[in-house]
Amino acid sequence: MGLVVQKYGGSSVADAEGIKRVAKRIVDAKKNGHQVVVVVSAMGDTTDELIDLAEQVSPIPAGREFDMLLTAGERIAMALLAMAIKNLGHEAQSFTGSQAGVITDSVHNKARIIDVTPGRIRTALDEGNIAIVAGFQGVSQDKKDITTLGRGGSDTTAVALAAALDAEVCEIYTDVDGVFTADPRVVKKAQKIDWISFEDMLELAASGSKVLLHRCVEYARRYNIPIHVRSSFSGLRGTWVSNEPQGDQQVEHAIISGVAHDVSEAKVTVVGVPDKPGEAAAIFRSIADAEINIDMVVQNVSAASTGLTDISFTLPKTEGRKAIDALEKSKATIGFDSLRYDDQIGKISLVGAGMKTNPGVTASFFEALSDAGVNIELISTSEIRISVVTRADDVNEAVRAVHSAFGLDSDSDEAVVYGGTGR
Amino acid sequence: MGLVVQKYGGSSVADAEGIKRVAKRIVDAKKNGHQVVVVVSAMGDTTDELIDLAEQVSPIPAGREFDMLLTAGERIAMALLAMAIKNLGHEAQSFTGSQAGVITDSVHNKARIIDVTPGRIRTALDEGNIAIVAGFQGVSQDKKDITTLGRGGSDTTAVALAAALDAEVCEIYTDVDGVFTADPRVVKKAQKIDWISFEDMLELAASGSKVLLHRCVEYARRYNIPIHVRSSFSGLRGTWVSNEPQGDQQVEHAIISGVAHDVSEAKVTVVGVPDKPGEAAAIFRSIADAEINIDMVVQNVSAASTGLTDISFTLPKTEGRKAIDALEKSKATIGFDSLRYDDQIGKISLVGAGMKTNPGVTASFFEALSDAGVNIELISTSEIRISVVTRADDVNEAVRAVHSAFGLDSDSDEAVVYGGTGR
Repeated sequence: MGLVVQKYGGSSVADAEGIKRVAKRIVDAKKNGHQVVVVVSAMGDTTDELIDLAEQVSPIPAGREFDMLLTAGERIAMALLAMAIKNLGHEAQSFTGSQAGVITDSVHNKARIIDVTPGRIRTALDEGNIAIVAGFQGVSQDKKDITTLGRGGSDTTAVALAAALDAEVCEIYTDVDGVFTADPRVVKKAQKIDWISFEDMLELAASGSKVLLHRCVEYARRYNIPIHVRSSFSGLRGTWVSNEPQGDQQVEHAIISGVAHDVSEAKVTVVGVPDKPGEAAAIFRSIADAEINIDMVVQNVSAASTGLTDISFTLPKTEGRKAIDALEKSKATIGFDSLRYDDQIGKISLVGAGMKTNPGVTASFFEALSDAGVNIELISTSEIRISVVTRADDVNEAVRAVHSAFGLDSDSDEAVVYGGTGR
Repeated sequence: MGLVVQKYGGSSVADAEGIKRVAKRIVDAKKNGHQVVVVVSAMGDTTDELIDLAEQVSPIPAGREFDMLLTAGERIAMALLAMAIKNLGHEAQSFTGSQAGVITDSVHNKARIIDVTPGRIRTALDEGNIAIVAGFQGVSQDKKDITTLGRGGSDTTAVALAAALDAEVCEIYTDVDGVFTADPRVVKKAQKIDWISFEDMLELAASGSKVLLHRCVEYARRYNIPIHVRSSFSGLRGTWVSNEPQGDQQVEHAIISGVAHDVSEAKVTVVGVPDKPGEAAAIFRSIADAEINIDMVVQNVSAASTGLTDISFTLPKTEGRKAIDALEKSKATIGFDSLRYDDQIGKISLVGAGMKTNPGVTASFFEALSDAGVNIELISTSEIRISVVTRADDVNEAVRAVHSAFGLDSDSDEAVVYGGTGR
């Protein structure tokens, strides 16, 4: 029986009852002989309430102070959780990110973990304590300021601690039963995946699946920490994410892991770009200089008569305004005719390591979309993923069609609780 | 123009509007050429809400975790205050007690400050920042755990920082206009005191005046830091507390500073104590072993016929049960007849350095009480204070009578806002 890191999201500790329920689950793990480290998010709506307060005093809250403010949320949750555990007769101590040795860079609001030095956690465990750690936060290496890790940050905290403490497993408790073959809100017949590889999970996360964030899975893969995503409400076995399936972990769908979709992106088309070396570089340099992350990039062959081509790319809708501004500013330098902006798009992605050795997958995917009457606007592929862009209105139908075509539908209509992710 | 430490209580920063008003006041001090360090308490009812949450998960919350929980309140307030100041175009940085170098012992919930090492505050000031520091909290020297300083702790934080930074003055902003010659809720004609000595202020605080806590004044006297108690609402000049009056500070009442009262105590009488050496020691040893602080102690001469005497003492009502239990347990060893417990008492104290050289004060005090028909149950005096215990019902009348007898009544009925103190 080794060391287990458990992470509980905000919906699992939304109120005193939730905290007491989670405390029991933690104590059970301890009773089973594990050393237990718990990473916890802020209670329910605490973070939103703090953001609301910040907006009342300052329209654009400063990064350093905003991080100081938000980290109060985890502080409250972790102290209450430690109290609830002690009330069950077990020893527990809570630690801030700084106390737990979560060292980050200095980029406030979306800091990256540089190092984890969990000396105090190790001591607490050796003394028989359950260690409760504030998720989502750290301390900057240079200035010793409090930082936050951005969206999904508590999951990353959990995996990073699991790696630093050489844990057996990192259990991510959430309000869904695990990772599904598609979003159960869209596909009623979506099935819970028993085991999935890091690679496939990374592609799903990059393609719109929200159960685990890309960064967290990337971290787990780098340090080879198995993740077990499961529900804090049901207590059922969830989805294992690791390099190889272990023991009784089932691999039902050898070819395809799942279908992901994403309607949070927009498409920018740069029209009438001279088809000569350096043009694409100039476009994406101006986007990069504005610190905008882009997703898919597609360039068509140029029309021979004009020597002009179009370049399209997708990016988060929230970055749309910034990207258009950046390109307009560089219009004379780059030399293009016009810009088109379209935020009524959706992306559907099919993910599975099996497609490497199954040439028919791409054809079946397009046939399924065609049969459903869905028009494809952009295509982009990796070794283990095919993604297409369609009209946003077509996305749900497209996901259902593809899910069914690849035999992922379950036999029964399962009732599934599905909510948002915490931090 | 030197360094100023300002402390704002919870009622001054109860909501976003309050925070913005306080931010303006702070910026004004900065504009006047001061270096400014601000100590802030938790917003309004935050602490009570956190205590309520703690009680929901655990009937007796553990000290360490309780401190971790409560300190979230100041963290929220200080981050918001820093944001509000930056929104006014001035630089501000917030610091936790630990970051500000407030080093304490390890007694959770009522830690004492051992040392203050404000290196980061000094750096922030040198870089042109306004420094915002969380009141009421520190970090323990040995275990590096988060501690809280107990009631009035933010005032102590402010004075301790003022001492460590060699500040010109420590301004305590509160919801009253200063220190009054009596509680204005009881005595309509109470007057604001312009200047008062540390010594008299210490006696007033020990006698029930709640504007400044004893510990804070004691700290200020030790390091000779002038305190200016004033309202964060009116901005009027308040009460100066220092060794000697400076400049235009008025000393209106040379003999008597004020009248304090306290109805939070109870009286225990140990009846039938053998009048022989060691008896009183045994009684108070058993009380001390139970970690109970007592206030007044009175022993009457013993009746010659019985060789027995009675010993009475007062203590906080909240400690009453514990004291009775401790004495009952030692009854056989100590050897007394019975215990009487009375929590319907009140204490009235007259404070003023002038009474040392004015022998008539004691007589006038008793005459005033007698004229008001107030019966005296216990008497205790120091060099600059006379205190009596009466029935609780008589307290308000007694305070008014004494206040009037010593010429402290103002000519007009001032309207005064008076609330509780924060931390």
